[in-house]
Parts: sequence; structure tokens; C-alpha cells
Amino acid sequence: MKKISFVLLVAVLTLTVSYGQKKIVNLPDLPGYVTLKCDFHLHTVFSDGNVWPTIRVGEAVRDGLDAIAITDHLEYMPHKDYIPADHNAAWKIAQNTAKEYNLILVHGTEITRSMPPGHLNALFIEDANLLAVDSVWNVFEAAIKQGAFLLWNHPGWKSQQPDGIPRMYDIHHRLIKNGWLHGIEFFNSSEYYPLVMTFCKTHNLAVIANSDNHGVISESYPSSKYTHRPMTLVFAKERTHDALKEAMFARRTLAYFNDMIAGMEEYAKPFFHQCITVGKPYLENDKNLYFEITNHFDIPFTLVNGPAGAPATINIAANGVTRVVLSKKVTAPLIYDVKNVITGENEVLRAELKY
Amino acid sequence: MKKISFVLLVAVLTLTVSYGQKKIVNLPDLPGYVTLKCDFHLHTVFSDGNVWPTIRVGEAVRDGLDAIAITDHLEYMPHKDYIPADHNAAWKIAQNTAKEYNLILVHGTEITRSMPPGHLNALFIEDANLLAVDSVWNVFEAAIKQGAFLLWNHPGWKSQQPDGIPRMYDIHHRLIKNGWLHGIEFFNSSEYYPLVMTFCKTHNLAVIANSDNHGVISESYPSSKYTHRPMTLVFAKERTHDALKEAMFARRTLAYFNDMIAGMEEYAKPFFHQCITVGKPYLENDKNLYFEITNHFDIPFTLVNGPAGAPATINIAANGVTRVVLSKKVTAPLIYDVKNVITGENEVLRAELKY
Amino acid sequence: MKKISFVLLVAVLTLTVSYGQKKIVNLPDLPGYVTLKCDFHLHTVFSDGNVWPTIRVGEAVRDGLDAIAITDHLEYMPHKDYIPADHNAAWKIAQNTAKEYNLILVHGTEITRSMPPGHLNALFIEDANLLAVDSVWNVFEAAIKQGAFLLWNHPGWKSQQPDGIPRMYDIHHRLIKNGWLHGIEFFNSSEYYPLVMTFCKTHNLAVIANSDNHGVISESYPSSKYTHRPMTLVFAKERTHDALKEAMFARRTLAYFNDMIAGMEEYAKPFFHQCITVGKPYLENDKNLYFEITNHFDIPFTLVNGPAGAPATINIAANGVTRVVLSKKVTAPLIYDVKNVITGENEVLRAELKY
Amino acid sequence: MKKISFVLLVAVLTLTVSYGQKKIVNLPDLPGYVTLKCDFHLHTVFSDGNVWPTIRVGEAVRDGLDAIAITDHLEYMPHKDYIPADHNAAWKIAQNTAKEYNLILVHGTEITRSMPPGHLNALFIEDANLLAVDSVWNVFEAAIKQGAFLLWNHPGWKSQQPDGIPRMYDIHHRLIKNGWLHGIEFFNSSEYYPLVMTFCKTHNLAVIANSDNHGVISESYPSSKYTHRPMTLVFAKERTHDALKEAMFARRTLAYFNDMIAGMEEYAKPFFHQCITVGKPYLENDKNLYFEITNHFDIPFTLVNGPAGAPATINIAANGVTRVVLSKKVTAPLIYDVKNVITGENEVLRAELKY
Repeated sequence: MKKISFVLLVAVLTLTVSYGQKKIVNLPDLPGYVTLKCDFHLHTVFSDGNVWPTIRVGEAVRDGLDAIAITDHLEYMPHKDYIPADHNAAWKIAQNTAKEYNLILVHGTEITRSMPPGHLNALFIEDANLLAVDSVWNVFEAAIKQGAFLLWNHPGWKSQQPDGIPRMYDIHHRLIKNGWLHGIEFFNSSEYYPLVMTFCKTHNLAVIANSDNHGVISESYPSSKYTHRPMTLVFAKERTHDALKEAMFARRTLAYFNDMIAGMEEYAKPFFHQCITVGKPYLENDKNLYFEITNHFDIPFTLVNGPAGAPATINIAANGVTRVVLSKKVTAPLIYDVKNVITGENEVLRAELKY
Repeated sequence: MKKISFVLLVAVLTLTVSYGQKKIVNLPDLPGYVTLKCDFHLHTVFSDGNVWPTIRVGEAVRDGLDAIAITDHLEYMPHKDYIPADHNAAWKIAQNTAKEYNLILVHGTEITRSMPPGHLNALFIEDANLLAVDSVWNVFEAAIKQGAFLLWNHPGWKSQQPDGIPRMYDIHHRLIKNGWLHGIEFFNSSEYYPLVMTFCKTHNLAVIANSDNHGVISESYPSSKYTHRPMTLVFAKERTHDALKEAMFARRTLAYFNDMIAGMEEYAKPFFHQCITVGKPYLENDKNLYFEITNHFDIPFTLVNGPAGAPATINIAANGVTRVVLSKKVTAPLIYDVKNVITGENEVLRAELKY
Repeated sequence: MKKISFVLLVAVLTLTVSYGQKKIVNLPDLPGYVTLKCDFHLHTVFSDGNVWPTIRVGEAVRDGLDAIAITDHLEYMPHKDYIPADHNAAWKIAQNTAKEYNLILVHGTEITRSMPPGHLNALFIEDANLLAVDSVWNVFEAAIKQGAFLLWNHPGWKSQQPDGIPRMYDIHHRLIKNGWLHGIEFFNSSEYYPLVMTFCKTHNLAVIANSDNHGVISESYPSSKYTHRPMTLVFAKERTHDALKEAMFARRTLAYFNDMIAGMEEYAKPFFHQCITVGKPYLENDKNLYFEITNHFDIPFTLVNGPAGAPATINIAANGVTRVVLSKKVTAPLIYDVKNVITGENEVLRAELKY
Repeated sequence: MKKISFVLLVAVLTLTVSYGQKKIVNLPDLPGYVTLKCDFHLHTVFSDGNVWPTIRVGEAVRDGLDAIAITDHLEYMPHKDYIPADHNAAWKIAQNTAKEYNLILVHGTEITRSMPPGHLNALFIEDANLLAVDSVWNVFEAAIKQGAFLLWNHPGWKSQQPDGIPRMYDIHHRLIKNGWLHGIEFFNSSEYYPLVMTFCKTHNLAVIANSDNHGVISESYPSSKYTHRPMTLVFAKERTHDALKEAMFARRTLAYFNDMIAGMEEYAKPFFHQCITVGKPYLENDKNLYFEITNHFDIPFTLVNGPAGAPATINIAANGVTRVVLSKKVTAPLIYDVKNVITGENEVLRAELKY
């Protein structure tokens, strides 16, 4: 039969990114490092997601990210009746678009097993198809051989831990002993797991925040509940794929979601102080002095447990100037708990306002 | 080799509709008919779109639509390296979700040829794969055999008509002569083609508005430019698939986009008068009388060219009450042009306000 | 000295209402009655408010109210160094604007005393200056002589009741015994007092919601915390000043604030059922049936404590269609607590969904 | 008769500013100067405005201004039946609030005459009551004696110039000759007058933008039409009243409204270049190179009339990163017209993008 041929004049734009400009997510750098905003956990039609890979690039650019990884499930492919398995497909498809839009695209995949060990992302890999093997330990080995950063996803996910409490099983300890586990998600989608802070401190792992999105990002974030998508802030020597990788293995991260920051005090403390400027008093009368806290960045901060006589709570607006009226009777240093900067399982940052 | 098997605990929600409630698009019914809001032109990953078919259902439900058709290109499949051709796939995948969410899913496809005849949607078909034949006339014949409603898409699309002006070619006249052409898009995506009004009047065709969306609806509508997605309003005897089909073949439609209505005066006139209520004067003084126009619906109206002495322009807000101050010197009837209700190529609705 | 005279060409618009259209607050009428939306407690520069009286008219029109009362304090006038006392001034100034904008303006004032009796509004009065007398009982007598509706404001206001719990003192009982007290604020500004429900039930008083606004309404409502300003819904025989007055004295009211309704079940129950329509099942399978609840109005409802096996909670969106999936095992009637319709101090409306 | 006395427990907050935080209007400083955002034309109930003076302070703080002047009409007092004339009242009332909120309050008044000379604001005065004299020249003299900055308001206001075209009359020339006229409004409320650019260039006058607001700022700005209120940007040596005054007399201003900047190239050019950063190319292929323009500030820019082969238009988003794809065939420097930076009556800024 004659081959069907058509003269097509179709030039439909298939890239929704074409009309989007990159938003600036306004967060400070740390001295010596540039702050990269990243989402290392995303799905597409190539596993159980509902969008084409280029959509993930477009979303990331509009949301002001510097890097993403598409991490389709290796072992869960509900669309396989329509789409044959190629675990590198999403990465291959998204690659050129990422380059054109100056987005760092990390090659990744999600190892999807029952608990233990649960789900883990292998990031910075070279060929996901080589990871489609039976024994989970063999998968880990193959990933590490490719230089992977192994990330334990949603360790307290109720489908795998019905009480919502993350637990380290023997296999996790073996991974750690081998130096094969590098990070854990503290924030996943809209959940978070306080215990992850202890795991990360004990075993020197990176604290991570990812969206794990399956649908359309803009239908989930921002919303009436969430001010922005989850992001891992990575403090890299420069804005390149390799510098990002170096920083990840060096555990220079903070997890950022819904106006909360979580991570090691080593990064959280300077990050907070880079955000705010405390002005000199601009007015003084018999009883009070007045000063302003300026926050040029996108994170608001809630300060609580101030010293006796000082305001008990100070709400520092994002991109705003906050006025503080302070009684002259207060002589103690203005040390507060920064309620939304989490530095441990039951611990928040203590910070001093020096006016 | 041993089959790879995993105990999966994956129960990921793959339906973004699950968290959405249906918005009410507040438009009046016409006497004897229910107004169905429809989008008959949508793409998915099964041609050159970027979303999985269930996403189209979720979007439609949230946007308050009653019916959609997914109309992937028959002849243009840029994802074919990854997704083998099955022109019924999107319809099969979306069907159950549509039922569960009480959305009417019309089986359709887009016949995608160079101009003439350009692109045409075949709606209410039974098997799209049977339409994948070479001769375009054979495609039409096969579609009509399945009972299709044939819709000419974006007749003034600049990729096919560089001057943007729709033209009827011989093949269109042959379709019309055979009674095979049933409607034309007046609005497509963000474009519109005034001349379509003349084509539809001359040849008794339905006036249609569709989004032709390839990406994510919520990234295009609403936006700072467009208040809502394009919809075809169909005046059906009841809210069922078959009543919708009957109404379409009977040409009982209006095209609705960006606060504009386009269609035959037969429907546009009663539609406008169902939207507004003109109150009796509530105040009168020596010079003026005051009355209110109440519009309980989602379309604002712009009335221009009022009679001498009356307000030249009246902006009737959507979901609002508009106050009119009328000089008592005005004795002429309050007949206005309703600027955003298009009833012809160069014609808008003339309507009288009876207070 | 010669009188200064200038030829002025000033025609500055001093009415901010001029550019505003009336929004429709979409709430149902009750059988036999029209629902009037009212705010009976507002301040201006003529006591301790910060806006000129016409601003109150403009705000009310834009917010879709039918009636307001300006109720400046009789006894608290912090602006008196700049504005000499005339307790009728605000009413006189706002009157013509109200007429032109079809807003019912109720003549009122706020009797402002320490507790007991606290603050009371006298509404539907004729001359506020006659109420500027020393003995509070004489003020009440003078107000009643003018036909006033007496409304007890914010009975649990912490400046007057430090524990926030309203208390009836001897003077309140005397007022009630005389038939001189007609209503109590359940909602005031952003506060509410559950105990008021008991007072109103015991003594047959109208349940009221007012904004008590001193600044600019749009700076307080809507906000990230409050969806709309407090309103008293009055079920009147028609939309006139006198019908409003009759309905108030007949206690036909509901208090409405922040998506909550409070009042007697006699009005709350039919009001709820006027808001929603429960559809017939549109889909049924072995396990479940599916039906929709349509709410064409501006109040969402939260239904809790459903029967065993049925959804525990149903969130009925405002202006939306809510899908319910019901197990066929459920045979009990679908009776729920409507969490945001308050019918007693510790009581919410019980309502049945009949599909 | 016995004096009426009440024990009041009224502690009502009369300051709407109390709950507001200062927004940061993100605009760059110029080398050596801090950019102060100012509105020098505002009305209150003390002439024909509709708000109490403290409201103006609260609005300004929330809107991120550094300085305002309240400029009630000297000769037009429609509220005088209720409020006796004291032309310093608004300033006296607002003063303490301004201090507490760190807002610079400039003492001012509006000289309100028919054209010529029309309306002029006297700013930085000491006693407005001394300006309430008959002869307009005497008013000017009295103002100058107090050290006033004289500002000609809305010179093309149609109530005084029916054709909307500003005209310099003899009295204006006399003012200029005396060195008594210091600035002219280019933007007033929502109007602007191109010819003012020529007047300011010819006579070395400051280019000014003011709101001239009579009602409530938040009801006018932002709106669907206007992105922000009009502001005069003043480049001062420091953020103090006296440094502001020095900068005004030195004519170091730009007028800023609705995403437009107007003023002398001397300030407009460095202001534009402080806003944007052009990155090095991040991608290059056979045909094109790709670079990004980063704009960390609140003003978008529209660049038009690019060199042949380069993008004709570049829209630089505010607070965003704009991607530019440039054909390698382009060898000319990338010089564009910055459409929304007005440097003359018929002239916009020419600027080069150096990547």
C-alpha cells in the first residue's frame, strides 16, 4: 500500500515555556557561594506523571529554579500499555529545552521499592536503563558506579510507614556505612518529617526538599495553603552542573518549603542574617525606642520568645520593613527563636537582633 | 532470565482532578434549553500536546465545562518515537475519569492537512483509527459514515493563510454541498476571524469557540489578557451526550471568549436579555431619573451609541448592579449597540433597555 | 478687612463611589422575604472614625449592602478640637449620596458608656442631639421615644469585660423587661461571642453582625483572614427603610461573617436549604453511587459528622459543584452537622442531604 | 446645668497603620544618592478630601513611601460648615504619627486659583495660615518667604485648560524669572502632560509625579489600570527632611507612574542601567547566541526599535530574568529605545545592552 504522505504546515508551539519569563526567587547567597534553587524529584508521563518532560523545564524556569531532576519510577510504569519503557526518555527529551532556557538538568531516576528501603532517587547518573535490575542492592551498586548521589525520599510516607514516623532499617545503615547514602527528604510534596533532622545530623546527610510532583506544578503551588513549591537550596561555588554536584556531595544544602527553612545551623544561621538588616533607632522618647528591620528577600520570619519586656513576637514580613517599638527598660540582648528556621528535630534557630 | 518483580506500595494519585471542585460558569439558559459549556479542540501527548488525557478532564471539571473533545492530530505525531500511534488512545484513557466526574466526553480527532482544506475536527466519531487514510476526501467520507460533526478549525490561521483572512476553497464548497460541513471556529485559542460570521450565515453552520490547547489550560486562561478559556455554548434539550449532539447538528450554538459572545442573533438576543434585568426608577428629581441594571451572570456588557442625551456608553459589570442616571429630556427608546455581542461580520447586537 | 473671594474652577469629585459599581453579594432570599444585607455600626470623623460620611456610602455600595447606619459615639469625640459636636452631622452629610446610590441609610448613634451597660446603638432615631444627656437611662428613654431599635454592641469586648465573656447586668434586665432591648451583636469587627446565642434565645432578641469600622473597610475586608465584612441579613417584606425597620423589630435576622452564619434555626435552616441543590445520582457502580451538590451562592458550607460509611466531611464550595461518592452500604439518612451555621451557644445546624 | 461626664473605657485604635507593615518599593539608588519615594499632593477632610490626616500616613507607610506632603486647598473648603478653617490642622494632626512610623512629613498647602496661574503647591512651608491672603502674588511672596518649593500642579487639567494642553502665562514667566517656580507635575492622578518635559528642560524645573488623592489610595492604586500610585523619586544625600529639601531644590527627581519613568536623561539613564544586568552568553550554536537580562527591581522595561536582525522588541519583566536569543549575524550594537522611560516631550531613552 502506498505510503501515506501529507504536506504539513504545522508549526504549533509545543513548548509552554516560550511565553514565560523566569521569576526571580529572591533569596540571599552565602559568603563564597551562590544559592541554587533546585527540585530533584519530578515525574512525567514516562512513569506515573501526567505531563511531557519539556513541561517540567517550562515550570522550573517560570518558578525561578536553577536545576531540576526528572526522576521517573524505574519499577512503576502504569502507562506502559501506551508508552514502552525507556528510562532515559524524559531526560533525553528535556535536555535541549533545558539548555536553551539555561536550566541545569540533572539526570536522575527513582528506585521504587517497598519499605525497606522504600523509594530512593539516584541523581547525577549516566544511564537509567542500567539500573533496571532486580536486586535492590545491585541497583544501588550500579548507581554508585555511575557516580550517583543517593537520596532517600519521603521516609515517613504513610503508604510505607503507616504511623508517619521515618525508621532506619538495616539496609539504610548498610548504605550509610558504605558511604552510599547522601541525603534525605525533609520536605516532600506537602509533608515533612522532623526526625529527618536527627538522621541527617547523626550520619552527615544533606537535608533536602522536593516537590515529587506528578501533575501540573501551578495547580499545586502557589495555592491558598502553600506559598511556593518545595526547593532544595544548594550553596555552590558557581552556577554549573558540576559545581552543583560538588555542593550536593559536600552537603551544603537547606530545605525550603512554605516559608520554612530546615537544615544545619552552619548554613541556616548565616542565611537568616543575610536576609535581614536591623536599622539604628530612628526615634526615641522617654519610654521607648523605635527601630526597623528590613527584609529584602522572599521569606518572612516569625520571631518568638523574646526577652522579658521586649515584644514577645516579631513578624518580619518578606520584602518589607518591620517596625519594632522597644521599651527602654529592656537591657537583655534581643535573642529570639526564629520559629520557621528549623535546625533540629525539636530545635529552631536562636538569633540576636543587634540594633 | 528471571522476571523482575517488585512488591509495590505505590498508590500515588495520578489524577489532578481529585482535589478540584467544579466551578460554576454562571451563564443563563435559554427558554426550553440548558446551556452546555464545551471545548471541542484539545491535544494531549498522543499528538503534539504536552499532557496526559486525564489532565484534560480535570481541567474541564475545574473550569466548569459540561463537555470536551480530545482531538489529537491524525497526521502529525511528533512524539511517535516514544509513543506508538493509536488514535483512540486519549479517548480510551480519559473515558472513565470523565464518567466519574460527570463530564461529557465527545470522541474526536483532528484531520490535519495543508490548506485547502486545512485542519478539521471530526466530532462524535466511533473509531479514529479508521480515519487514518491517505486521501482527505476519504477521511471525510469515513468520518461522515461514523456520524461525525465536521468542524473547520482556525480558518484564518496565519501558518496556512498568511494574510489571516479565511477563504473558502472548492473543497469546502463540496463539503457544504454534501451537507458534510457543520461548523467553523470563530474563536480559536486567542484568535478570531470576523469573516466566519458570514460563512456561517450563508451556509447555515454552527459558530464555534475552542481553546486548541496543547499545554496546560491554567497557564493560558485566565491570564492578564484573557478572562476565561474559549467555550462553545450549546443550547441542548438536556445535559446528555446525545442531546448535545442533536443541538450541535441543529446549530444551536454561541461562541464565547474573553467576555465576547459571537453567533446568530436568534440565540444572541435572548441570551443577552436573560443576563440582565432593568429595574424601575428608584429616584427621580427635576432633571434626572435613576435606575439600576442587574446582571447576575459572568459576562459584562459594553453598551455604546445610546440615543442623544442618554449616556453614550453603559458598562454593565458582571455579577453586579449598574446605576444609570438618565436625563428626563431623553424621550427616544434606550437602544444601544452591545459592543461585545457579535452577530455578524461587521455587526453587533442592537438591544433596548426597558426600565 | 476685605472678604477674600476667588474665582474657582474646582469641580473635584469628592465621591469615591462615582467609579464603583455595586457588587452582588449572592445570598438567597427566604420564601416571602427579600434578604437585605446590612451593617448597623460604622464610625466617621464625627467621632473617632477616620473617614468622611460619604465614604461609608461608597464602601457599602461597592460591597453590595442594602442598608447601613452611621453610629458615631455620642460621648467620645477625640476630634472635637477640630470638629464641633453635631451628632446628626454624619447622617445629614451622607443622606443625599445614599439616595442617589439606592442605599438605605438608617439614622443611628452609639451610646457609649462604661460597663454596665456598655455600648448600645440606637437605630431608626430622629435626632441624635436629643440623646446627648447625662443619665444613661434618660438616653434610653429618649431613644425609645423616637422609636429606636436598641442594639447591645460587642458585649464581650475585652476593654469592658476583661475575660471576654458577656454578662447581663441589672440594667440589661431592666431594658429587656421594658421591651427596650431589641438585639445584640454576635459578630463585631473580627470577634464573636457564643453566649449571645443564649441571650437572644432566652429574651427573644435579634442576632446581629456589624463591622464597627473606624478606618477604611477595604483595608480590613476582604483580607487574608476574613473573606468579607460582617453583615446582618434581614428578611424584609420589601427593600425599603420601613420594611427593614419592621423586620428588625420582628427579629427576622441572621448574622453573617467570614463564611459563618449565626441565628435562630427558624431562619438558618431554610436559608441553608435555599443555598444548595442536591442532584440525583449520575453514576452508579457495584460499590458506589455518585451525586453532585450545587451551591449557586457565596457561602461555602462544611458538613461534618456524617453517618457511618458516608464521607465524614463534605466541603461544599461556594459558587461550585461538589461531587459526593457514596458507598451503597450506607442506608442511614445523610444527616450532617453544618459546622459553619451556628444555631446556639454550643449548637450548629443539623441538615439532611436528600439525593 | 451639670457638666456631662462619662467614665469611658474607650481605647479604640484610630490608626489604621497599626496593622500595616511597610512594603519595599524596590527601585535602585543612584551612585552617591539614596532614592526617596514621595507623594507631594494629598487631600484630607480639611479641604475637599474624605479622610482624616493620619490615614495619609498609614497609606504612605504601607505603600513604601519615604515622604509625603498633605496639601489641602487654601481657598476651597467645602466642609467648612462642619470643620472650621485651620490650614495647619492636617499637618499638626499627622505629625506624631509620621514620626512614629519613620515617614518624612513635608508641611505643605495648595494655592487654588483659576488659570492663570491655576493650582500650585507650596512645600516645606512653616505656617499655611499666613498664606490665606487675597492677592495670589502675595501668597507666592509669603510662601517664598517661608522657604517654599513652589510646584505647579496639573498644568493641563481640562477643568482649567479645556484642550488639555499646558500653557505658560505671564504670571508663570514672572515666577520663573524670580526663581520662585521649582517644579511641575508631569504625572497627576492618572493624567500626564508631555509638554511639561519641555517646560522643565527650558526653565530647569523638577519633573514631578503626585497622586492628588482625595479619597482612599487603595481604592485607586493598584487597580486593573494602574500598577502603583504616582511617586516622585528624589535622589537625596540621605533619608532626612533636610536632605530631601536640598535634593528637590537641586531638581534631582524622576517622575514615576504606572511603570513609566519621566525626567532628565542625566537621572533617567543611570537609573535604567542600575535596574538591569546583562549576562554573558550562556549558549551559542551555529545561528544564535543566548543571554539573559536580569532585572531585580519593580519596573519592567519595554525596549523597541532594535537594530536590524535583532529582536525588534524586548520586554524586560520586573523582578525577572529575560532570555534573549540573538542571531549571530547581528553586528551592530544593541541600542534600543526604552519606550517607558521618557526623557523629552517626544523622546525616550536610548540605551545599549552590552552582553
